[in-house]
Amino acid sequence: MKILVLNAGSSSVKYSLFEMSDRSVLIAGIIERIGEDAASHSYALANNDRTRDEINCRNHQQALQLLFETLAACRVLTDRRELAGIGHRVVHGGEHFREPALIDAQVMQRIAEVIPLAPLHNPANLLGIEEAIRQMGETPQVAVFDTAFHQTLPGYAYRYPLPEHLYTDHGVRRYGFHGTSHRYVAEQAAQYLSKPLSETNLITLHLGNGASVTAIQNGRSIDTSMGMTPLEGLMMGSRCGDIDPAIHFYLNRTLNLSNEAIETLLNKESGCKGICGENDMRAIHRMAESGDEDSRLALAMYAYRIKKYIGAYFAVLGRVDALVFTGGVGENDAWLREQVCLDMTLFGIAIDQEKNRKPVRPCDSINPANSGVAILVIATNEELEIAIQAMQCLELPQTLN
Amino acid sequence: MKILVLNAGSSSVKYSLFEMSDRSVLIAGIIERIGEDAASHSYALANNDRTRDEINCRNHQQALQLLFETLAACRVLTDRRELAGIGHRVVHGGEHFREPALIDAQVMQRIAEVIPLAPLHNPANLLGIEEAIRQMGETPQVAVFDTAFHQTLPGYAYRYPLPEHLYTDHGVRRYGFHGTSHRYVAEQAAQYLSKPLSETNLITLHLGNGASVTAIQNGRSIDTSMGMTPLEGLMMGSRCGDIDPAIHFYLNRTLNLSNEAIETLLNKESGCKGICGENDMRAIHRMAESGDEDSRLALAMYAYRIKKYIGAYFAVLGRVDALVFTGGVGENDAWLREQVCLDMTLFGIAIDQEKNRKPVRPCDSINPANSGVAILVIATNEELEIAIQAMQCLELPQTLN
Repeated sequence: MKILVLNAGSSSVKYSLFEMSDRSVLIAGIIERIGEDAASHSYALANNDRTRDEINCRNHQQALQLLFETLAACRVLTDRRELAGIGHRVVHGGEHFREPALIDAQVMQRIAEVIPLAPLHNPANLLGIEEAIRQMGETPQVAVFDTAFHQTLPGYAYRYPLPEHLYTDHGVRRYGFHGTSHRYVAEQAAQYLSKPLSETNLITLHLGNGASVTAIQNGRSIDTSMGMTPLEGLMMGSRCGDIDPAIHFYLNRTLNLSNEAIETLLNKESGCKGICGENDMRAIHRMAESGDEDSRLALAMYAYRIKKYIGAYFAVLGRVDALVFTGGVGENDAWLREQVCLDMTLFGIAIDQEKNRKPVRPCDSINPANSGVAILVIATNEELEIAIQAMQCLELPQTLN
Repeated sequence: MKILVLNAGSSSVKYSLFEMSDRSVLIAGIIERIGEDAASHSYALANNDRTRDEINCRNHQQALQLLFETLAACRVLTDRRELAGIGHRVVHGGEHFREPALIDAQVMQRIAEVIPLAPLHNPANLLGIEEAIRQMGETPQVAVFDTAFHQTLPGYAYRYPLPEHLYTDHGVRRYGFHGTSHRYVAEQAAQYLSKPLSETNLITLHLGNGASVTAIQNGRSIDTSMGMTPLEGLMMGSRCGDIDPAIHFYLNRTLNLSNEAIETLLNKESGCKGICGENDMRAIHRMAESGDEDSRLALAMYAYRIKKYIGAYFAVLGRVDALVFTGGVGENDAWLREQVCLDMTLFGIAIDQEKNRKPVRPCDSINPANSGVAILVIATNEELEIAIQAMQCLELPQTLN
């Protein structure tokens, strides 16, 4: 049984086709720079054959056409009826979607309604859905929301200390993001710990270009660092995360920056990039090793801010079974994991240096045998989680071969 | 030996005259609504005689004249030469002032330089200083800064993940406030614990109309919740504290609010007031007890956000000797203290319900004998701390009778 996962951005479409009987990827690719002169299509097959084509691709309609032609040409989908469903990644589900949803006109309407909350992402996600329906109307399609996993937050955690009508009339509240990833690694962690997820308490750190941390109690998200938007929380590659909310007024009044300029500055010129000019963690490590003080400061701040969230979420959870590192940085940056876990014995956190240097994919523990809290490194797989959730939504049998 | 402490606001002057041999208050008063029609002067003497006069008071010059006339008329200062010094509260000392400073032209210049960082407070503080020098030029005067205690923060704690030039050229960094109060209660806590302050780790919670929490390691502030301005950090009476920095853009774009309107909203209409319409904690409790859900939510959020900071600062400090509650709310709100300490056994935090109901002023512990972390309720005294620091700055002997 095959499931296609689509992630439509404003100028790109990412896709993965899964054979769900063994959860293998038949093909995974990306069509980029849609609507630009130098559009391209890169994809890899299960045998790891990789192709990159320069293409003409004016819009999402042509992108999806190309995608389905490629699936046929590569013989990974010779008959469209083989496709049991399409799972669409949708960034913002507002307060309505606590679960994946079978897409119909009403669901699309609701995704459109929360565009003001995710003006960059939801319109592109919708475009992908509309086009997929136009071209593959016979295949059931499911929307899987980045925010859905966090809809279990209690009111005292999701509300901001702002005038009530901003919440009731305008939806200003914490939604949280990266939900698909936090949920996926939570499930993997519970399996690794041989505990039911519904009895497992976790702090999951998704550290990539964006970064967020979630407090999971008995398998449910009860707090998360990203807020109404993905700008809040941890320090990121180029996003600031938590700052004094009055800094805006200072930048506006004293430096005469417009709101548009401040928005760009906080999203694109801040985080690690603001401190040391670089947002790629590997590059920052190289610079730090060669003595660059700004890079060292960026790393110290990045780790310090994670530590504070871990402490905060220990206070929220009371008991923590495991701390989970995932995402590009979380999975690969042994230095950072060590730095974050340093001097945290109070919490029962300790790291085994040797295990930490080379954790085994897709899931391994890096704590010494006697420590109170398991520390896990888990390779996240948002695409697979979307495929699994799409199958659950379509009530398709999940038996693995 | 007598020290006068002055706190000049834009339309008020608060003062306390101390006899430092026994640290007693000879007179304490406030001149309010300076420049308005209904100005008033309220003061209390050591025998608790209280007076309130309607007055004409056009400006700070007249306010200070009245003040010194009152000191003479009440016979608490019959000869101005009895006054060993005047201590001025100054909100913002920028990066320059790590300690109190004997006021001269250069110090005044430096206080003026950071006006952009504290546009509401520093100009008024300066006005008070200028007028006091004009009228009492012979008396040495000391500036005591709200920010000074936090100048020991390490770079990774005081820097924001923002472009470097905002820090180097424009001073955008965490400064922290309430320093005089955090420092005062830290000293009291160390005395109570019979430990040298320089070996004492504390989390001090100053909870009043404004609210902040400080992580103190070996007597030095190493992190604090207020930031470049007093808007960041904990949820307060009418200030929002920590929120998603992108909420500004949403309010501006979707609700068409100007930056001025957003600044007023975040400072005056948010916090507890935003959630339940009320910023006085006693009133909120009364409403909650009579079943008002919004008041209950405000209390739950207020406590929850404190808990998260406590967890975060445990992660920062590693070992904590005591948690200190101070400020109007911290000293008086037993329900809140209990709520904050609930389910914190992981940290060694537990509360003795009976002790918590009626802690003894000015300093008492409310933890059971066997708990790992002392929990103290300490009456803060910023005026006395300013007087003590002024004496230290003037190198006057501090022997108590």
